[in-house]
Amino acid sequence: MKKSIVITREIKPEQVKLIQETAKTYEVFTQWENPISKFALSSVEIILGGDGDLTRAILNCADNQLKWVQVHSAGIDYLPLSKMKRNSVLLSNTSGIHAEWIAEYILGALLMRTRGLDVALTMQSQKKWHHQVKTSELSGKTMMVIGAGSIGQGIGRLCNAMGLDIIGVNHDGRKTAEFSKMVSTSRVDDLLPFQDIVVNVLPLTQETANFFNAHRFSKFKHGSTFVNVGRGATVLTEDLVNAIKSGVIGYSVLDVFSEEPLPDTSVLWNLPNTLITPHIAGQVPHFKSVVTDVYLANLKSYLESNELCEKQVDYNRGF
Amino acid sequence: MKKSIVITREIKPEQVKLIQETAKTYEVFTQWENPISKFALSSVEIILGGDGDLTRAILNCADNQLKWVQVHSAGIDYLPLSKMKRNSVLLSNTSGIHAEWIAEYILGALLMRTRGLDVALTMQSQKKWHHQVKTSELSGKTMMVIGAGSIGQGIGRLCNAMGLDIIGVNHDGRKTAEFSKMVSTSRVDDLLPFQDIVVNVLPLTQETANFFNAHRFSKFKHGSTFVNVGRGATVLTEDLVNAIKSGVIGYSVLDVFSEEPLPDTSVLWNLPNTLITPHIAGQVPHFKSVVTDVYLANLKSYLESNELCEKQVDYNRGF
Repeated sequence: MKKSIVITREIKPEQVKLIQETAKTYEVFTQWENPISKFALSSVEIILGGDGDLTRAILNCADNQLKWVQVHSAGIDYLPLSKMKRNSVLLSNTSGIHAEWIAEYILGALLMRTRGLDVALTMQSQKKWHHQVKTSELSGKTMMVIGAGSIGQGIGRLCNAMGLDIIGVNHDGRKTAEFSKMVSTSRVDDLLPFQDIVVNVLPLTQETANFFNAHRFSKFKHGSTFVNVGRGATVLTEDLVNAIKSGVIGYSVLDVFSEEPLPDTSVLWNLPNTLITPHIAGQVPHFKSVVTDVYLANLKSYLESNELCEKQVDYNRGF
Repeated sequence: MKKSIVITREIKPEQVKLIQETAKTYEVFTQWENPISKFALSSVEIILGGDGDLTRAILNCADNQLKWVQVHSAGIDYLPLSKMKRNSVLLSNTSGIHAEWIAEYILGALLMRTRGLDVALTMQSQKKWHHQVKTSELSGKTMMVIGAGSIGQGIGRLCNAMGLDIIGVNHDGRKTAEFSKMVSTSRVDDLLPFQDIVVNVLPLTQETANFFNAHRFSKFKHGSTFVNVGRGATVLTEDLVNAIKSGVIGYSVLDVFSEEPLPDTSVLWNLPNTLITPHIAGQVPHFKSVVTDVYLANLKSYLESNELCEKQVDYNRGF
């Protein structure tokens, strides 16, 4: 049986062609136009793009030969990780490519509020001119970035340049170039009361599930800002809703949710002082070409040496 | 007759007290609670804050003794400048104090668009989740800042840090620290076709009135962004409207207008791809205290030596 590669997320025809030319002996399936039949699943050696259901279906074939999953995202929590680990499937993500775009998203969402632009948009729709819009200065505010991996460091770099007073948080508090102050996760509760802005960039692991819960929100400074660009399930939605309703959180910027798309029955949609965006923080028009570059680099390395040259995920750490 | 000081824009009681203590022999009038009567106008030696009508009324008193006007704003075009010049009235503004706040406003307005946040706000109000929001990256875009005075330089500093590729424009093209590229006004038309973003920070002078007109907009790159935080009358509104309608300007951010408040009959309110804000770019909560610092510094200097220590306006340059 011919070995195959499945590309699950749409990329451009010329990008598919580059992949086919790199892996000449493989059959390439593109799920958006030439999807793989269920009878061919056991031919799949490589998945490019993220699809939990497809990955599960392939692993459920007794004679499957899945060797490597390269996802298009930073998060990998939607994959059948324990089974993949047992089967020694290589796993890589695109961690880091989103860093700059997510940092721009966060700055935009913060400045939109501090400069009164969201209020101005509403006034504009009513043709109203009120000079007394509530504004403030972003520079000088304190910010904690929880999860100081590649995305967190991109946020640190940009927000430092904006004059924010930043603390990074990672597992063990080891220093990185983008944060002059870095602490370990165990210090978070002590320092939360002093933060004007808290940014969640945590990956979803056993350790981080429901990290933001009633206990943690109770440590927040009253009226502070909470930004979630990590993973939805690192936040207990009900506790977040209470923290927003009680005014503990004065502004929340939410791009990720424990259920996506966010159902139209969710109470989050209508909360005051809350910006809901549909998981777009890391999105840009040239995303496909940046992702394809990662696919191709790892594909060449894999074909030559059965090893990945970048962004391999460690199953034990979970990222 | 006792000499007097009129403060035209509200500041806090303790700030008024500081001014009274600094100028003990003067009577201090505060227009928002203790306004000066028309019979006392000729006692006014100093105006703190900007009020064109009051300044005209004082200068119309044959026996007026107006010696110094210190405005709260950067712009001074609303004052009777020729008459003030003839009477050798000292004039100072607050140029520079708004620089950082205006820079944050501009970044916020740009990122709100490039990160799809304005569209997300509308979707949120309809509880709609569409992942396909148009987004782009701000870093790497080209930007021209026309009017590279203290506000322009604040914009340059922040936008440089954001990774924008910036050209400053001033009268004679002399270099300043915040712009690695600086050109003179005469080069603007040649360079406009290459700019993704054009920021107007021009003061209003005879030379700059209607600087942005049909001719100039015709040089703009199709679909580019236009930001006006200068003065309303440096832009010919009708020509701006045409440039927006034709798509030459793909996004406009307008904080200043030739008529303010912008009348509700203005066509600007409903234009597509246009953000209207009510002259708030330079506004922050601690504005009064920063302005009072400028008032006090110049007041001490004036009382000691009849000279101003900072931010004196040159009538010949117009800023």
